[in-house]
Amino acid sequence: MSNITLEQARKVIDAGIQKSIALGVKMNITVVDAGTNLVAFNKMDDAWLGSIDIAQKKARTARFFNMDTGVIGQLSQPGASLYNIEHSNGGLITFPGGVVLKDASGTIIGAVGVSGSSVEDDHEVALACASAIA
Amino acid sequence: MSNITLEQARKVIDAGIQKSIALGVKMNITVVDAGTNLVAFNKMDDAWLGSIDIAQKKARTARFFNMDTGVIGQLSQPGASLYNIEHSNGGLITFPGGVVLKDASGTIIGAVGVSGSSVEDDHEVALACASAIA
Amino acid sequence: MSNITLEQARKVIDAGIQKSIALGVKMNITVVDAGTNLVAFNKMDDAWLGSIDIAQKKARTARFFNMDTGVIGQLSQPGASLYNIEHSNGGLITFPGGVVLKDASGTIIGAVGVSGSSVEDDHEVALACASAIA
Amino acid sequence: MSNITLEQARKVIDAGIQKSIALGVKMNITVVDAGTNLVAFNKMDDAWLGSIDIAQKKARTARFFNMDTGVIGQLSQPGASLYNIEHSNGGLITFPGGVVLKDASGTIIGAVGVSGSSVEDDHEVALACASAIA
Repeated sequence: MSNITLEQARKVIDAGIQKSIALGVKMNITVVDAGTNLVAFNKMDDAWLGSIDIAQKKARTARFFNMDTGVIGQLSQPGASLYNIEHSNGGLITFPGGVVLKDASGTIIGAVGVSGSSVEDDHEVALACASAIA
Repeated sequence: MSNITLEQARKVIDAGIQKSIALGVKMNITVVDAGTNLVAFNKMDDAWLGSIDIAQKKARTARFFNMDTGVIGQLSQPGASLYNIEHSNGGLITFPGGVVLKDASGTIIGAVGVSGSSVEDDHEVALACASAIA
Repeated sequence: MSNITLEQARKVIDAGIQKSIALGVKMNITVVDAGTNLVAFNKMDDAWLGSIDIAQKKARTARFFNMDTGVIGQLSQPGASLYNIEHSNGGLITFPGGVVLKDASGTIIGAVGVSGSSVEDDHEVALACASAIA
Repeated sequence: MSNITLEQARKVIDAGIQKSIALGVKMNITVVDAGTNLVAFNKMDDAWLGSIDIAQKKARTARFFNMDTGVIGQLSQPGASLYNIEHSNGGLITFPGGVVLKDASGTIIGAVGVSGSSVEDDHEVALACASAIA
């Protein structure tokens, strides 16, 4: 298993902070490794306190299923195939803001979770994070 | 970060109890500080036992996102952007009855959560609580 | 089952706060009813954050077994009869600071838990709390 | 209540990483704010996975009681006054490696928790962390 390094995780977070500043938003940003274990976290000043946990759950959710969290959220709606999957794994967050992290060869080495604004902003920052090491 | 004092928290609760008596309802009222830590709680006699926990979750939910809990509940419906956000932070309550508490300068210093009647009554009592120190 | 009223619970807490001021300590004080449900809580300004939960666990522990928490703590030592009872009921606290609350007739109507200083101070404040309604 | 900033938290972590490199150890380092909420975390490459949670519990434990975690551990031994306090607050860690963080004026603005080596090393790194912003 290839795994993200702390050096890479810090690049991921710094890219997310720069993007957040550009968007004028305050984010919580979590990086987990390929085993869903926490590698790095930063809470921007005055970011929502409730987003600390959400950012972590988004990162783990993305790596749990190797999908953008928003994709899982479409499948977890009432009547859809994964309805209420959020009850698993100590609680998932299935709206946008969590994406997997890949190295230059395309291997998944972890995931990032971003929370602190609209889900559109959260997802945009998460993509900026992921592109920092791709 | 400014934080609510116990003296302020007791004024918040007393205002809520007076409003509850005026409405003829029995409430559980929780005050948390700016860091979401519990500062004060009162359960009116014969208020619902299940509302003890709900009042606390409402208060924390309001401060977690600096919004009225009912606003989050609109965003967490099936198909909406924050669907199932309630799985985060050890459990959120996202119907009305939780509001942030601000000091006279407008700084958020905590939040109040009220539970024990209809969500309309809960919210009305929470607003009475908040106005006691604004 | 006779149960403590909010009016009584507030007297209990106010007596504890007065005693704490006299001792020069800052306490978290919890009152639970005869069913171990939370009735009232106050955190004195600058009291330890970690004592919020401990005060609640002390109050419930005292009522769970109708004993001073310190008595249970003697029985839960290594080699003693109730070793590691703290693992039950979502976590007990078994050092001094929790005592049952009785009405004038001697009936147990709830319990109080106090945390924020030495266990000797915690227990002394808890006794002051209990005497306020005995 | 004054609260640590992300800029300060990153200085704290960087100082801890430098000290860890000097000692030849691999640490998990957590910074929480004055309200015990997570601000920043870094896991050095190949640091123990089980220390991710321990570092966080150490940081919170230090702020919960405004003491070095090791001091609490002396008081929580069998027969001592705070025996089994670890059952509170969702689980404490009471051996060395957690210390409060103060600003230049001496105000507590958060805490740091370090885990990944002997408790002596953990504590030494935590002190290096704390001195970065004192």
